[in-house]
Amino acid sequence: MELDTLIVNGIVVTVNPDFEIIGKGWVGVRNGRIVRVETLRPDSVMPMAREIVDADGGVVMPGLVNTHTHLPMTLFRGLADDLPLMTWLNDHIFPAEAAFIEPESVHAGALLACAELLLSGTTTCCDGYFHEDSTAQAVLQSGVRAILGQGVIDYPAPGVPDPAKNIAAARDFMQHWRNAYPLIQPSVFCHSPYTCSEKTLQSAKELARSTDSLFQIHSAETRYEYELIKARYHLSPIAYLDSLNLLDSKTLLVHAVWLDDADIEKIARSGAAISHTPDSAMKLGSGIARIQDFIEAKIPVGLGTDGCASNNNQDMFQEMDRAAKLHKVSSLNPQVMNSRTVLETATIGGARAVGMDRMIGSLVPGKQADILILDTQSPHWTPMYHPESHIVYTAKGSDVRDVMIDGKWQVRNRSLVHLNLNDILDQARAVGNRIQEWRTHRESI
Amino acid sequence: MELDTLIVNGIVVTVNPDFEIIGKGWVGVRNGRIVRVETLRPDSVMPMAREIVDADGGVVMPGLVNTHTHLPMTLFRGLADDLPLMTWLNDHIFPAEAAFIEPESVHAGALLACAELLLSGTTTCCDGYFHEDSTAQAVLQSGVRAILGQGVIDYPAPGVPDPAKNIAAARDFMQHWRNAYPLIQPSVFCHSPYTCSEKTLQSAKELARSTDSLFQIHSAETRYEYELIKARYHLSPIAYLDSLNLLDSKTLLVHAVWLDDADIEKIARSGAAISHTPDSAMKLGSGIARIQDFIEAKIPVGLGTDGCASNNNQDMFQEMDRAAKLHKVSSLNPQVMNSRTVLETATIGGARAVGMDRMIGSLVPGKQADILILDTQSPHWTPMYHPESHIVYTAKGSDVRDVMIDGKWQVRNRSLVHLNLNDILDQARAVGNRIQEWRTHRESI
Repeated sequence: MELDTLIVNGIVVTVNPDFEIIGKGWVGVRNGRIVRVETLRPDSVMPMAREIVDADGGVVMPGLVNTHTHLPMTLFRGLADDLPLMTWLNDHIFPAEAAFIEPESVHAGALLACAELLLSGTTTCCDGYFHEDSTAQAVLQSGVRAILGQGVIDYPAPGVPDPAKNIAAARDFMQHWRNAYPLIQPSVFCHSPYTCSEKTLQSAKELARSTDSLFQIHSAETRYEYELIKARYHLSPIAYLDSLNLLDSKTLLVHAVWLDDADIEKIARSGAAISHTPDSAMKLGSGIARIQDFIEAKIPVGLGTDGCASNNNQDMFQEMDRAAKLHKVSSLNPQVMNSRTVLETATIGGARAVGMDRMIGSLVPGKQADILILDTQSPHWTPMYHPESHIVYTAKGSDVRDVMIDGKWQVRNRSLVHLNLNDILDQARAVGNRIQEWRTHRESI
Repeated sequence: MELDTLIVNGIVVTVNPDFEIIGKGWVGVRNGRIVRVETLRPDSVMPMAREIVDADGGVVMPGLVNTHTHLPMTLFRGLADDLPLMTWLNDHIFPAEAAFIEPESVHAGALLACAELLLSGTTTCCDGYFHEDSTAQAVLQSGVRAILGQGVIDYPAPGVPDPAKNIAAARDFMQHWRNAYPLIQPSVFCHSPYTCSEKTLQSAKELARSTDSLFQIHSAETRYEYELIKARYHLSPIAYLDSLNLLDSKTLLVHAVWLDDADIEKIARSGAAISHTPDSAMKLGSGIARIQDFIEAKIPVGLGTDGCASNNNQDMFQEMDRAAKLHKVSSLNPQVMNSRTVLETATIGGARAVGMDRMIGSLVPGKQADILILDTQSPHWTPMYHPESHIVYTAKGSDVRDVMIDGKWQVRNRSLVHLNLNDILDQARAVGNRIQEWRTHRESI
């Protein structure tokens, strides 16, 4: 058997079911898949390979799965911080979206986001936004693996000025992208239980069911939302979604902060998954999700950065550190969310949450070759007793040296292989400059 | 007037009292000091300079002040995580210290730490540990500005097997390093109110007072400590320290998590400062300090990473992000700890906390030239509406391109100018390998 790529001389952190770590190992890739993951021994016999890559003693690990993004919102990175959620949304983000979210800007913002994802080790993202066609074009160009959902909301939205057409727009997106490209899976992104009617929620879920696609929905993010839904329907947000029969194994509940025990039981019973977004929930002051309880209830949990307007970056290494530490301090228990659990959440757990755990999320023969090589020749990686500890507690996205997705290198030696970074930055800055002028003008009147 | 160094073409984030940010500015340095900080205009007339450095549109800002480190503990980075505090200390850290903390290993660990500090933009640290002489040698070699304290504790400690000699050892250190080198200020590092007797605490403070030096002490870190001190003395840890007359404007209270209103009032009245260590307090599950109340009470507050056994890195950019977000989520209020406040805490606030705010902490003519240039040519810095937001919420230590301390470049283009990184990593790894063998042996019996 001949290999396409042979990665040698790495600490292979497999994240397989036994959480095996090979101190010195090799990984073989053929036709976009992982075919061998083995220990390097003095008597090792390795297959021929078209390409041999020396990991140089660094960490070889599965690509990270970011289960919640709004890629084009990179355009609003740092536009407005440190504000109450509703001021932030109504006075800054929504007006900026109304003024600037159009196909070209979405493409520029999504491409910027993909460059950031790649350079910091995310190989799969689960995204939802408006003009998702443009996002999909950018993602396709970037080589990132993605689940993408056209946004459904009962308000006039960029590209869908008439909310009556929101399901139709989502259906068009689904039809266009379904089974079209191996790295892109269309899905349905319903904004939330408080911005969509019962009918919209059910139609959106119906569209997802009819195409066996993921149904993403922001749920139970803030106390505001919790109280609103309680007042409207006399149910918690999760109980409300459950009453509409929206929870099943193809539903991804994003944020899931304001939950009671019964909600957790409902989610667990339904098979629905949760995208946990600690960084965004911290920055917006939304609250602390009960991730320990989710894991105990065997709910599939992935990590997500959320959009750059509320994080403000997409570094999943930072998100891991955050997930590990936030729950320790909130429970005053340093034993919760240990490094293995957190790393699983950011890889195989995220893959499970979006229904792709048979395909990605660990370095196991037969899976698609989504692989990172981390450079560990730096002070913050030294010494190294437990690689998984360093991945969670000291690594940064900037330690990512090489990124392979579906067997193809997208990053080599910290540089994008197929994208022109300077062009991407220039295009995003051009939109940013227009937003800056608009902001200055608005503030002056 | 001729300059030694002229830094041009940068976004100058001064952190001066008006928090002035110059969109395109220049900074002049002469004889180790900042002499000019000005806007670059088409008609600007700049003095001659021996050296002109192009910031390339990046951010020029004051060096970061890390107010709490245990530099040599880099050697224990990731050795034991996710454990209850007392198990972690008694079963892992204390035995490892007893077996491996000696002058040579301390030097290797401290040099590793300094390399990490420099490469991630910390120009001043406030440190306390054992064999502090060796740490001081390493710090001196590195060019980092530091306040260093020989550890005082009423237990047998590395280098001070007889606790009766702990004050004498601290005095020796003080005498050796006092007024010896411009970048090094000796201080007294008393371990804590629960590991030092009344007499030790008072003698240590007396030594600090007699030399007009900083008195550092871990205080009110955990509920365990709080309850212990309450049981012993019927006082909170802070009230206890106050009853011994240990609080004044040269006292730095480290951690300060378990405080009541009366404690905060006592600290404010005394002029004592606080080193806030959110990352370490999160990882150890110690609790959340009342930083908002400290700031309102006008207590000087700096940020600190703590040692690498409990963080596990020394990236002050990460610490800023943490400080900004932790207090938002714990108060469910996204308006607290805004980016300006946090950036001040990591620079001028830290300088004030360690008594050096006249000398460092902001880019103001007359201050010592401790300056960073950040590379902003990357996706996570794009677009940029508010530089201070990006410094706090998206930057990483790896964005630091150049570091000047006291007018001398210590990092250029992300590389150490005067230290050999490979040698430093090799020496630290040699100690790490011995620790790994010892750990494996211990676990096998």
